Amino acid sequence: MLIKLVPLTRVTQTFGTTRTFVTTPGAGLVEAPRLVSTGNHVNRRSLEEVGERMVKIRFCDDTSSKYPYVWLRENCQCPSCFNSDAVARLFLTDDLDLHVRPKDIQVCDGSLEVVWNDEHTSRYTGEWLYQRAFTPQARQLQRSSYRLSRMMWGSEFEVPRIDYRSAMEKDETMLELLVLLERYGVVILTEASTRLGSLIDMIERIGFVKPTHYGKDYQLKAVVSPNNLAYTGSKLGLHSDLPYTQDPPGTTWLHCIHQHEGKGGDNTVSDGAKGVSILKERHPDHYNTLLHTPIYFQDQGFHTYDFYKITKRNTITLDEEGQLNQIYISSQSRDSMMDLDPEQVYDFYVALKVFNDILIEHGITIKTKSGEILALDNTRLLHGRKSFDPATTIGFRHMHNAYIDWDDLRSKRRLLQSSMGVSLT
Amino acid sequence: MLIKLVPLTRVTQTFGTTRTFVTTPGAGLVEAPRLVSTGNHVNRRSLEEVGERMVKIRFCDDTSSKYPYVWLRENCQCPSCFNSDAVARLFLTDDLDLHVRPKDIQVCDGSLEVVWNDEHTSRYTGEWLYQRAFTPQARQLQRSSYRLSRMMWGSEFEVPRIDYRSAMEKDETMLELLVLLERYGVVILTEASTRLGSLIDMIERIGFVKPTHYGKDYQLKAVVSPNNLAYTGSKLGLHSDLPYTQDPPGTTWLHCIHQHEGKGGDNTVSDGAKGVSILKERHPDHYNTLLHTPIYFQDQGFHTYDFYKITKRNTITLDEEGQLNQIYISSQSRDSMMDLDPEQVYDFYVALKVFNDILIEHGITIKTKSGEILALDNTRLLHGRKSFDPATTIGFRHMHNAYIDWDDLRSKRRLLQSSMGVSLT
Repeated sequence: MLIKLVPLTRVTQTFGTTRTFVTTPGAGLVEAPRLVSTGNHVNRRSLEEVGERMVKIRFCDDTSSKYPYVWLRENCQCPSCFNSDAVARLFLTDDLDLHVRPKDIQVCDGSLEVVWNDEHTSRYTGEWLYQRAFTPQARQLQRSSYRLSRMMWGSEFEVPRIDYRSAMEKDETMLELLVLLERYGVVILTEASTRLGSLIDMIERIGFVKPTHYGKDYQLKAVVSPNNLAYTGSKLGLHSDLPYTQDPPGTTWLHCIHQHEGKGGDNTVSDGAKGVSILKERHPDHYNTLLHTPIYFQDQGFHTYDFYKITKRNTITLDEEGQLNQIYISSQSRDSMMDLDPEQVYDFYVALKVFNDILIEHGITIKTKSGEILALDNTRLLHGRKSFDPATTIGFRHMHNAYIDWDDLRSKRRLLQSSMGVSLT
Repeated sequence: MLIKLVPLTRVTQTFGTTRTFVTTPGAGLVEAPRLVSTGNHVNRRSLEEVGERMVKIRFCDDTSSKYPYVWLRENCQCPSCFNSDAVARLFLTDDLDLHVRPKDIQVCDGSLEVVWNDEHTSRYTGEWLYQRAFTPQARQLQRSSYRLSRMMWGSEFEVPRIDYRSAMEKDETMLELLVLLERYGVVILTEASTRLGSLIDMIERIGFVKPTHYGKDYQLKAVVSPNNLAYTGSKLGLHSDLPYTQDPPGTTWLHCIHQHEGKGGDNTVSDGAKGVSILKERHPDHYNTLLHTPIYFQDQGFHTYDFYKITKRNTITLDEEGQLNQIYISSQSRDSMMDLDPEQVYDFYVALKVFNDILIEHGITIKTKSGEILALDNTRLLHGRKSFDPATTIGFRHMHNAYIDWDDLRSKRRLLQSSMGVSLT
């Protein structure tokens, strides 16, 4: 096991009402601290008003957090403000009074009770408040439930391997698979058999297959008149899949039903996060070019229907927090149409070439065996293929390819963490 | 017909090889101008070297464009550099020489012929080059093939109505539907019948249904223990659908199988593009707050499998060109967890409330009849629902809801424009 899953957390509520949380990382199982309960109104020990807009709440473990009144009012947990079946807020922004204030506020039986100036009464358990504390610690914990931090890797990397059957049968192995894929962006599933359908079984154990205009899944074999270069023996440069769609699949899974027995047909893989960090450090000008030069991608053809897809993307994109979000690279489908001044074109090519060279230098090669599945983060990793000759007697190569989004992968990881009581940062 | 589709363009090549283009907007059918052909090498009339990296090419209509050599080399159209079945580049970034230069360059029979310093020979038709000119005119045309410009609207807006059967049967009507939806973000399809399945038929005429963790489509009826507020009679504030997924559906389609006959159940709809433009002008501080404050959205429950989705989003996001990309609003699914300093919380609520008030003020109300379909741009429009009482004898309300992404809608629009020879800006 490459990752040690330490049960740091006591999951104190069942699925549907809470996220897992840790009070003192590494300290083993702990209860959520209760509010200091005194029975007194706005007691100095447990509650302290902070200006006009917030109250500071102290917990038994001597931590405390400020809570804005407007947030408390909107998040009232009573049945007319919150539907606990749907786990959804009923209270509408339309009805929000930005100047709402408590008429009466007290701690009772470890819970906070508020009577508001609109006469509405709210009650919040200490545990609920503790989980939602506006402190750096609580916020870090929320962030790691949202998504795990990435581990970058280079050419020395050995791809983690997970037994297919174990991941299908055991939650511990499934969680390990999900964590490894989220951290490293690549996992090989071994002993998946050469049965067409093993891949779909695995994806449907996690969530649902993401369809594209090529259908639910692909059979990758070399064909005459291909509608995509994937259906040839051509070398494919490092690329991301489907950059010509608004929402490229989060991960791409390649089940090797039959591997080419001659030379070639290997997959090439590189960590775009690593590549971006090197590019940014060594060539900030090229990094900025790839961050700010919108490029068209296109895909035209016929599958079950005619399609003509176009997107416009910066090669490197950042998320709302300034971290790497997604990389869009594809020589195959980058459009010859460019919405640039001719003077910008050369700079783009230089930046792309330098980035491509970095990715190749720090990448690895993988030739999966028949019966293995290669899973790749399509938002972060770039992958390619060495050329092979499909016309030879040993030339047959058959891959089964399908997609699943990060939404479902992370959802499954959260649910398993919750049911197994495992916390990860 | 609300939009006049004028055939400005002669589509000179069939699907799969070209985008439509216009040489002189409004002038009717025209041929693409050819290169000035003289038979001479680097003739001053047709070709002019610009520094070390570009050549300037002049066309018969006296327009001209610079073309970078590196771009010309990468976009060589010969069978070893470009696969015309797959409409994909075979030439790899790995093999790109940033300093590539012509050894010999000439115009012959209206085409450009280049022998490169790596001895490779390339040939480009004048038409192909003309379409890909790096001029403001050619680039504007490419942009409008990518996506149409939006028409913003407010409370006086009358939603465009299209006959369902006509859109199913006639390409002209289908194109009109697609153009209206892209421009205004909302269309009503009339006379769609109350047959469950009419909606799927329409979506599958365009592309494919986008599934979610709720399945391929939804039957919206009030239920006991709903896993989503949509399955209740509650009022829903203005929101976007599925903001708790990385890739919310591009459009949401609501087929009214049976409308609630009593008071309520109307849809409320507002143009977020209009709302953002007003917010930015009148309250730049609040606009900036919504542009830069990441907010969690969550969805927890059970459908065919357990799910626990989380995303982190800024309320307003911009695209790679600084234009409005997507709006994420949902009181139902905005998380009570907030990764903010308590001091930031109040500012966020003020900005959200002001934006919400603007959206309501400039929004409209629609009560579709049984047999009508309401199609909405989910990236730009916000929609809600007036409350209704599902327990009354007239309370039954049944909507059939499914999604289709902009990828497919725009793809269909491009294909119809191409086959019908219609240009739009």
